[in-house]
Amino acid sequence: MTESTGPLTDPAGLAAALRFDPESGFAGVDPHSTPGFDGKKSDGRSAQDADAPLIRSAQECLHANALAPDGARRALVLVLQGRDAAGKGGVVRHLSGTVGPHGLQTTAFGVPTDEEASHHFLWRVQRRIPPWGRIAVFDRSHYEDILAVRMHELAPRSVWEPRYETITEFEEGLVLNGIDVVKIMLTVSQDEQAERLRERIVIPEKAWKHSASDLEDRLRWHEYSEAFEDVLHRTDSDSAPWYVVPSDRKWYARWAVGRILLHHLEAMDLAFPPADFDRDAALAALEDSARTIAAD
Amino acid sequence: MTESTGPLTDPAGLAAALRFDPESGFAGVDPHSTPGFDGKKSDGRSAQDADAPLIRSAQECLHANALAPDGARRALVLVLQGRDAAGKGGVVRHLSGTVGPHGLQTTAFGVPTDEEASHHFLWRVQRRIPPWGRIAVFDRSHYEDILAVRMHELAPRSVWEPRYETITEFEEGLVLNGIDVVKIMLTVSQDEQAERLRERIVIPEKAWKHSASDLEDRLRWHEYSEAFEDVLHRTDSDSAPWYVVPSDRKWYARWAVGRILLHHLEAMDLAFPPADFDRDAALAALEDSARTIAAD
Repeated sequence: MTESTGPLTDPAGLAAALRFDPESGFAGVDPHSTPGFDGKKSDGRSAQDADAPLIRSAQECLHANALAPDGARRALVLVLQGRDAAGKGGVVRHLSGTVGPHGLQTTAFGVPTDEEASHHFLWRVQRRIPPWGRIAVFDRSHYEDILAVRMHELAPRSVWEPRYETITEFEEGLVLNGIDVVKIMLTVSQDEQAERLRERIVIPEKAWKHSASDLEDRLRWHEYSEAFEDVLHRTDSDSAPWYVVPSDRKWYARWAVGRILLHHLEAMDLAFPPADFDRDAALAALEDSARTIAAD
Repeated sequence: MTESTGPLTDPAGLAAALRFDPESGFAGVDPHSTPGFDGKKSDGRSAQDADAPLIRSAQECLHANALAPDGARRALVLVLQGRDAAGKGGVVRHLSGTVGPHGLQTTAFGVPTDEEASHHFLWRVQRRIPPWGRIAVFDRSHYEDILAVRMHELAPRSVWEPRYETITEFEEGLVLNGIDVVKIMLTVSQDEQAERLRERIVIPEKAWKHSASDLEDRLRWHEYSEAFEDVLHRTDSDSAPWYVVPSDRKWYARWAVGRILLHHLEAMDLAFPPADFDRDAALAALEDSARTIAAD
């Protein structure tokens, strides 16, 4: 299932290049860069199209295994985080169109509902862990129970501080049971975020996306950077790794996230289970069917 | 939001062309035809790409209205039915990639689970009616509670016969309350279905899709045609209309379903609600933010 497309690095190579590096940190990634990709936007679109069938096939392989009596029981959770207007929604749409909703379930975790808020913070997350064979994409996630709670002082530090460890152990438990956890931070530059927020203000069709709180959060740019750094440094591990994806160019972010997903699916090293039926007999019955129908 | 693209008919025109016609019936539609479209596969892909932003924008308008205090409260349910391998899954994936999963929720109704089977047949369907501003796509639907039950004799006629009326009244209730119901039957030819089932038999990566029951159902081709005719004739209405979409060419079916959806969204005649914030003030605050952040 691996492939090589000339100037582009392979999925494993790209994943390695975008893996969170504690040395340089979150701030060390240039949001405008396109690591592992030389081309322009149109090349990026072509690269997305080229990867789509590979990603789809890899998910189908996951699913086929889940259906087979002796198949592997695996699933994958893809976490997306990032500042407002970083492009999380667009990435989710792209992945959903690539894999299809039957193979990929998506959840946008917003402000907790009354019911969600009346439970432990992981309750609503645990309910959205995918069944075997499926991929779950989280648009925001349990990391907001640190990030949003910290930034908006929704609870004292004594509440959110232990969550770094709780989350690390929760994810470790998933991984140990066959559910990969892949975490992606989309990073956008100050200028690009300003441009995207500006569109929401001036374009009538985008006004519904405008939120005064986005601007308030933007003013606390450095504080947010610090909160992101803390999350990355304290919850990154080889079993549940973080990636930092430059997202000023939407087409790059979509391609790169798809490739990271592809890398993790390929790393599961699954094969399609053998057919559990008699091929020749099935084929003979099919060939015969037109005559049967005609005589009906 | 309306547009014209030369040789292609407009969304309303295409919808009219594909509307179920009681005179010619289900059997009167040629699965290999491409009504309202002159071009080839590559043109079909281009037409899909051209429609995508229109469909996305129409859903965003629906959503923006749902968010606005004085906005319209509307939603839409799109029902997909068809024979095995008619391409329902591909249509769902296409729509999901077009609108995005946050605007379009999908449900594949399979064999009822134990919990579902312990309830009235509409219970699981009612739970998947979309919230205001969203589109729900049903891959199979409450129509299987007539079709599958009838064909596989899961219950006597006295059970499924009243369901034509129950369903008609259920859908009427949705429509009266602002939820459009659009129903699409994908029609595939005998030859094309054979080709798709053959691929599942001979291509190892597709073997997991093979099901012996698909072939058994295929042998009852004419019986199924009759069951489809009955559903179309007895549950079609101007308020909850059926469309019959030729689906031998996957690209045509995807384009046509998108256009029918677009037609119904446009027919709601919604406008984006006015911005509920002070544009100039918001813009001034945004312009000022870079300086504030730099001084932080």
